[in-house]
Amino acid sequence: MSMNAEVLTVGNELLNGHTTNTNATHIARRLTSMGFVVRRITAVMDEVEEIASVVKEVLARSPALLVVSGGLGPTYDDRTAEGIALGLGRGLVENSDALDQIRSKYGEIEVTPARRKMAFMPEGAVPVPNDAGVAPGIYLRIGHTEILATPGVPREMESVLENFLNRYLVKRPSVVYAERSFKARGIMESVLAPHVISRVKKYNLYIKTHPKGREVGDPYLEVQIAGSSPDREELLNRLESCEKELREIVAKMGGIVE
Amino acid sequence: MSMNAEVLTVGNELLNGHTTNTNATHIARRLTSMGFVVRRITAVMDEVEEIASVVKEVLARSPALLVVSGGLGPTYDDRTAEGIALGLGRGLVENSDALDQIRSKYGEIEVTPARRKMAFMPEGAVPVPNDAGVAPGIYLRIGHTEILATPGVPREMESVLENFLNRYLVKRPSVVYAERSFKARGIMESVLAPHVISRVKKYNLYIKTHPKGREVGDPYLEVQIAGSSPDREELLNRLESCEKELREIVAKMGGIVE
Repeated sequence: MSMNAEVLTVGNELLNGHTTNTNATHIARRLTSMGFVVRRITAVMDEVEEIASVVKEVLARSPALLVVSGGLGPTYDDRTAEGIALGLGRGLVENSDALDQIRSKYGEIEVTPARRKMAFMPEGAVPVPNDAGVAPGIYLRIGHTEILATPGVPREMESVLENFLNRYLVKRPSVVYAERSFKARGIMESVLAPHVISRVKKYNLYIKTHPKGREVGDPYLEVQIAGSSPDREELLNRLESCEKELREIVAKMGGIVE
Repeated sequence: MSMNAEVLTVGNELLNGHTTNTNATHIARRLTSMGFVVRRITAVMDEVEEIASVVKEVLARSPALLVVSGGLGPTYDDRTAEGIALGLGRGLVENSDALDQIRSKYGEIEVTPARRKMAFMPEGAVPVPNDAGVAPGIYLRIGHTEILATPGVPREMESVLENFLNRYLVKRPSVVYAERSFKARGIMESVLAPHVISRVKKYNLYIKTHPKGREVGDPYLEVQIAGSSPDREELLNRLESCEKELREIVAKMGGIVE
């Protein structure tokens, strides 16, 4: 049985095109590699009501895991903790463990209100240590769903995500995910399409052709083959057989495999 | 009054972390520059029901514009047209104008079923020319909302998006958007935070500090200032005054403006 996950990224900079959402890519890849199936990625502004709405929508779909990223810092527009609290119908309270973690980061420096703000979390939350910055992550279990919120600074997101996956995550997928890919020059995507679909059925794998050139005139494809299985060795063998067969088809049709 | 927009990107490669969603960034930046406010970006898999669900959810929020990207190509997993049709409760029918555009791309080459598939659109759709590839874009008006679907190959997305904005888009924002930014070294984000919030109120602008260094030890911030106004000159003056004031604050506090 697949374990579904969702990602929610928060930040006006994602919505106005100032910043490319590489955090979503990193989180999606990491969760996929663990065997989760990421079903949806959402980006919204730093607005409490927007964040709360998405949290409620995600919980209604009941994934095993929701990872939220962005908006945990010390500034006025870092409002993700408040948004999650609103979405869950819980209070936003100062978390004493989180405050201890924050105090230890600043050392001799005074913990001003802007800094203390990072200790406020939804009631019942557990702070997740951030080894690359100040703001701790936020961990909650709501029914079937585990929720992690991380800061948006990429190395802080990565630190909190790894600490969570290694020390806090309760429900782990029992399947592994793996993928392979190769490049094919000189074969149009529309020509390869029927061969791809028959191999998807034969091998029960996900195969996607990513056009890198031009369909008419200069066709160049990346062929990606991926799948999940409880048995890693069985999966790798299946991927290998499927790739071998597709490479042979491309070569037979006069394409060049790279 | 702000004109809201949403973006829906379709493709398993976005959900498994294989591909970073640069299409969403491009579309968001382009729409923002025209005066739209992009309220939400969603990414889902190449699944008809998922696409249909998001289309229905977006229409319930009634934005002025929805731009969908990805899944219009010739392969079995390109199912966006079908998903939009299902979401709208419309049939998926062969569009003769779209078929003409596709035939003209292939020239002497036979239009096989995989190629003909790209001419199937929701009933009532208008094809939008694709100058960089084969699959035409899809344009629809549903009540208050204009919908554009583009292919996922970046240069094809860009071509269809520009053709749409220049020739098909009916409801245009009457405001302009502009932004400025500068870098500040040696000032902690938590120290600048109260000064930022007071300028947000004073100038009615959006100001965001993007941490690039480390809050404790090596603080380095990008300060982004942005806003919208019906009057471009008034907006540029306001941005300039606000930036000048923030630069002075950083310098007064011993920070280095870059």
